Amino acid sequence: MKLKVFLFSLLSISIYAQNPTEYVNSFIGTSNFGATHPGAIAPRGMLSISPFNVSFDTKGIENPLEKDSRWLSNPYVNENKFLTGFTHVNMSGVGCPELGVIIAMPTTGALETNHLKYGTTYRNEKASAGIYSVELDKYNVKAEMTASTRAGISRYHFPKGEANVLINLGLGLTNEQGAMVKIVSDTEIEGMRMVGSFCYNSPELAYPVYFVAKFSKPATSYGVWQKPYKYDGVESQWMTYNDQIRLKEGFAREVVGDSIGTYFRYKFEKPEMVELKVGVSYVSIENARENLEKEIGNASFETVYQQTQKAWNEVLSVADVQGGTADQKTIFYTGLYHALIHPNILNDINGDYPEATTNKIGNTKNTRYTVFSLWDTYRNYHQLLSLFYPQEQLNMVKSMLDIYQESGWLPKWELNSTETFTMVGDPASVVLADTYLKGLTQFDVEKAYEAMLKGANTIKNNPIRPGVEEYWKLGYLSVDGGVSGPVSTTQEYNIADYAIAQLAKKLGKKKDFERFNKQSLSYRKLFDKQTRLLRPRHANGQWYAPFNPESGANFEKNVGYIEGNAWQYVYMVTHDIKGMIQMMGGAKAFEKQLDYIFDQNQYDMANEPDIAYPFLYNYIKGSEWKTQKRMDDLLKTYFKNTPDGLPGNDDTGVMSAWMVYGMMGFYPVVPAQPIYTFTAPKFNKIVLKLDKKYYPNETLTIESNASDKNIFIRQIFIDKKPYNSYFITHDQLKKAKHIRFELGETPKK
Amino acid sequence: MKLKVFLFSLLSISIYAQNPTEYVNSFIGTSNFGATHPGAIAPRGMLSISPFNVSFDTKGIENPLEKDSRWLSNPYVNENKFLTGFTHVNMSGVGCPELGVIIAMPTTGALETNHLKYGTTYRNEKASAGIYSVELDKYNVKAEMTASTRAGISRYHFPKGEANVLINLGLGLTNEQGAMVKIVSDTEIEGMRMVGSFCYNSPELAYPVYFVAKFSKPATSYGVWQKPYKYDGVESQWMTYNDQIRLKEGFAREVVGDSIGTYFRYKFEKPEMVELKVGVSYVSIENARENLEKEIGNASFETVYQQTQKAWNEVLSVADVQGGTADQKTIFYTGLYHALIHPNILNDINGDYPEATTNKIGNTKNTRYTVFSLWDTYRNYHQLLSLFYPQEQLNMVKSMLDIYQESGWLPKWELNSTETFTMVGDPASVVLADTYLKGLTQFDVEKAYEAMLKGANTIKNNPIRPGVEEYWKLGYLSVDGGVSGPVSTTQEYNIADYAIAQLAKKLGKKKDFERFNKQSLSYRKLFDKQTRLLRPRHANGQWYAPFNPESGANFEKNVGYIEGNAWQYVYMVTHDIKGMIQMMGGAKAFEKQLDYIFDQNQYDMANEPDIAYPFLYNYIKGSEWKTQKRMDDLLKTYFKNTPDGLPGNDDTGVMSAWMVYGMMGFYPVVPAQPIYTFTAPKFNKIVLKLDKKYYPNETLTIESNASDKNIFIRQIFIDKKPYNSYFITHDQLKKAKHIRFELGETPKK
Repeated sequence: MKLKVFLFSLLSISIYAQNPTEYVNSFIGTSNFGATHPGAIAPRGMLSISPFNVSFDTKGIENPLEKDSRWLSNPYVNENKFLTGFTHVNMSGVGCPELGVIIAMPTTGALETNHLKYGTTYRNEKASAGIYSVELDKYNVKAEMTASTRAGISRYHFPKGEANVLINLGLGLTNEQGAMVKIVSDTEIEGMRMVGSFCYNSPELAYPVYFVAKFSKPATSYGVWQKPYKYDGVESQWMTYNDQIRLKEGFAREVVGDSIGTYFRYKFEKPEMVELKVGVSYVSIENARENLEKEIGNASFETVYQQTQKAWNEVLSVADVQGGTADQKTIFYTGLYHALIHPNILNDINGDYPEATTNKIGNTKNTRYTVFSLWDTYRNYHQLLSLFYPQEQLNMVKSMLDIYQESGWLPKWELNSTETFTMVGDPASVVLADTYLKGLTQFDVEKAYEAMLKGANTIKNNPIRPGVEEYWKLGYLSVDGGVSGPVSTTQEYNIADYAIAQLAKKLGKKKDFERFNKQSLSYRKLFDKQTRLLRPRHANGQWYAPFNPESGANFEKNVGYIEGNAWQYVYMVTHDIKGMIQMMGGAKAFEKQLDYIFDQNQYDMANEPDIAYPFLYNYIKGSEWKTQKRMDDLLKTYFKNTPDGLPGNDDTGVMSAWMVYGMMGFYPVVPAQPIYTFTAPKFNKIVLKLDKKYYPNETLTIESNASDKNIFIRQIFIDKKPYNSYFITHDQLKKAKHIRFELGETPKK
Repeated sequence: MKLKVFLFSLLSISIYAQNPTEYVNSFIGTSNFGATHPGAIAPRGMLSISPFNVSFDTKGIENPLEKDSRWLSNPYVNENKFLTGFTHVNMSGVGCPELGVIIAMPTTGALETNHLKYGTTYRNEKASAGIYSVELDKYNVKAEMTASTRAGISRYHFPKGEANVLINLGLGLTNEQGAMVKIVSDTEIEGMRMVGSFCYNSPELAYPVYFVAKFSKPATSYGVWQKPYKYDGVESQWMTYNDQIRLKEGFAREVVGDSIGTYFRYKFEKPEMVELKVGVSYVSIENARENLEKEIGNASFETVYQQTQKAWNEVLSVADVQGGTADQKTIFYTGLYHALIHPNILNDINGDYPEATTNKIGNTKNTRYTVFSLWDTYRNYHQLLSLFYPQEQLNMVKSMLDIYQESGWLPKWELNSTETFTMVGDPASVVLADTYLKGLTQFDVEKAYEAMLKGANTIKNNPIRPGVEEYWKLGYLSVDGGVSGPVSTTQEYNIADYAIAQLAKKLGKKKDFERFNKQSLSYRKLFDKQTRLLRPRHANGQWYAPFNPESGANFEKNVGYIEGNAWQYVYMVTHDIKGMIQMMGGAKAFEKQLDYIFDQNQYDMANEPDIAYPFLYNYIKGSEWKTQKRMDDLLKTYFKNTPDGLPGNDDTGVMSAWMVYGMMGFYPVVPAQPIYTFTAPKFNKIVLKLDKKYYPNETLTIESNASDKNIFIRQIFIDKKPYNSYFITHDQLKKAKHIRFELGETPKK
């Protein structure tokens, strides 16, 4: 019966065009290292329930995308076929393994606690925003799951006979270990699990995630299992139980250890359904219980799913797209969906959250966000939020400032209130400036500015800008200074300095403006006229040699660059494209270099440094059509309605944001400059719904005669008047109600 | 200053003869596998603080009594010299490793968390009842510790400079692992540690011990360390921190894992003292905190020590001995001290305790005792309590009945509400009957009787008496029935049946009396006339062959016996010595066999089966002097005022109880028969203080002209009248006020 309700609800929503969740295919990005997962999650949810199929014995398996041996950063890979449970906290589209714990698993028959033995193949996977279901071959069990923000419900449809629900706290996406569990009653457990060591870094920052799990039916029997490590000493001779799993039947006090789990067992006279409700918290078990009680309580699976589905429909409704193919719509809305997973909510429903580095528990009346992958997101992601979700963007800015307040530094790659110091640069400054300059000024800009200056000016022990002393002295980071990727990092610092300069100007801090504006161009000292590339340089001014511009592609480690090579970085100076054109020797040379990069496959769609490259043709009069052509090619090649439908790691929604902007026909090409540049939209009509509180018009309609062939802009009209530029300021866009693209099959040269 | 107070208090007590703690040398039994420890403990304390010196790298060490490789059951061995901390829960005089966790260690200088590196040699150990102190060579730190029942205080006297207090939750006496810890503030931590797998059995019964630790001075810095296991997978290539200890500086949420600990660091401008107060509980952290607060709170080290010293003086004052050497007094009072450690208190100060097998938390208004090593203690230990501490004995009986109520079975070898099923037989029945028959009837004897019958009569799945079906059918356990030590176990069941019969008789249950009385003699079917020993037998009646009576000595595994051989078991039938004499062919043959056992070194003073043998000469008219001679020899040989001053494992005070009785001149030779037999006392005057509530006379004075040479009884006088038997009933003893032994240098033949 309930199953039918679920199917009906899936069907029912497809009737209404205003239900964009219909166009969410959460399997997109689950292959080709997209690192997304198809699990059930609410918008920016703290909890998600994802199938976990990345742990198995790799011997004899053909496509062994095994989590540890492959550094997998996702609990699920579409190619894999061996499922060992459903994780309750997960990350989406990140480049390093983390979370992927509190793994529940329904099984039948005799109790088996070794996941390599209880794992199973599966069939009939279904997933959409907020829901996932699958059938487990070995057990003939259908499992369905949905989630609210901090809690989730799973339904396990068991056949008649012995049934088990395991919660494995030993297994996880990373090989971090350590857990506590306590069986509270025959329908409830509570516990915690250590997580941490993102990117196999900073293991000392590992922290617990707490949970409470409630079962809809009292267990016939229950217990805890514990798997100790194998003892090698002489005592192993008399330890008959060495290297064996222990079953603590009925044990009701805490059990702690590296590898533990609980089992709840049932004996069913007929097919029965068991519902498992789980609440999580990063603060305490009590808060996990409160999150579960207040968000789900006695609500049914259907109610929770409907609420979450409604929430997704609301947040996805910011853009109503019409006139593309179903695949295009799915690609678009799934991109938007992926952009609404991180940063996610960190605070409990009562406002509690773990503060950054203080080891205290804070409390907020706003929302405390986490997972700030800023090296990625400063480029376009927060710009998308400022447009579509200004209130959310402001809350994220406030979270960033709270992190500064707590830890003394702005976030760089923040994760559950730990700073992972992953990647390089000073990206938070760019986000803060960009937000303010777009008119979202409802935050403490003086504190923000103070934080930006601290990151830019602190000479000693500066965790944000290592090497900053040399940077200010020479204008660049030398290959001798010990800072990795000195060319890339110089560019990142320049971009941040540009952002600081723009904000300083806005705030009337003229001297600061001049200083930072000047410094933002210091990358020019790395311009090597001979190669016409930015080249690693010694502190004494000599060029680094031998210099191979291609070195650094495909994440290969190299002397000058971070996750890229000279081609992928040379034009990462969007705040100074005019300067770059000049250094290159004019527009022609600039364009030739850009063509070369694309034509020689030096462009890397899978990573961020060159993410704005396709839009740079718009800086060359007469060659703007190349932006439209490159974008059409890239969108068609890399963004598909298939599991491998992302070019690679989604980078917490940055790739998706790029695609969403691209398909809408404009892109925020210069971070911290409130400007967009145009390309051809991919839908005939896009109605953007804008937040009345921050935007003068409730909607902005973008119309076009887009089609598979109509990919070139012939003329742009804004509010029915011809518009003769490929750039538009944020203020102009805000004021516009209607943009029409007249497209054609041939470029306008 | 404070140090002086402590020394003064130690000196001051020596002035008063009524302070028997003066004669406690808690180093006795810390060598020769006595398995006692010199740590600070209150009478029957749940907590004790013992030096821990049994974990080190054995390479190149001469006397490597290392815990794992030697199956050490004690946290401290006098021969060892490398100390790695102070444990807060310990067992005393048991044969298997257990507890020995929550290990605190003061160090100085840079932080080091590997105990193999931070361990140190030491000097100037001092210990008495309730107190222990030592100086650590490596750190020039003096450490002192004292304890209340459920809490303890340690004082660490640090020199100027960097100081650290470590609490290592990875290390422990056994290799069980799993702990949780949370730093509550800069002066407090809370946590738990898994313990269990006593005798390397039943690891699934492992359970947590909870603790709260408070520091007298706020730490300058603090944190948690975590030592993960070494990863062997491919990921170990990129885990730069593989196999390395992690320091979680300032971390204030829970940390869980197999190998963790906390550090509290100080920087002292001058020598300073840090006090560490620890409370424990087997129920919860909250209870551990309450135990600490209510028992110690703000009390000073001196106050706690004085209270505990007073408590020891009170319980040790049941016997005031005069006229022996100082060594004899020390041996005697230390024996009594060792007999007052286990069974120990399990319930928290609020009455909470973990129930046996129910997985519930119970609450008692009495005392819930634990550590019932009944195979040992049924022989003489509870008899000693019935005499000296009748109220305590009754409370223990009540605990045993509560265990029956909770688990469905009487305890056998109970430990912290887990049944370890160590050793064989049905010893609880003997203790219950013996207690009741001695007039301590203030317990639910009908329930006790019901429990005894259940153990005796349950044919299937009887955890107390495996093989009981065959036992009732054949009268003995055959070598074919799969029960280990079938001869020994038959004898144990016989002894229990004798006890049940005696109680049945007392309760007027005539039929039961007849049935059990008859069965109590069924061991006779194992009497082999040829060897005149009890011999393993097949179910079909054939004797087991080949039969080597000596097989089984020194704990060697053998077919017929448990921890003994045929000689050590043949006379373990004290309820039927007359029958045995008859089977042997008369008193002469019986005596000859007994002489043979002693003279051929077949008597094992280190274990229980033959513990009554020296007293059996009293059954042979004219040979009673041999009891006196054997006892004198044994006491002189095996009981000394030295670390190796116990014959071996103290077996939770049973060896000590044997010695205490022996030195007083009488012994409860037949368990469950309220009778004692005499030997020559070793003091000139012993005043026994008896509990008015249970005994008609407040004191019983035993006088003698005992000396090193006067070891033979010439005449016994009771209340000044000549007494012409070597046996006395419990009732007669109760009524007596004065017993005088006229001793001489030559035997009375």
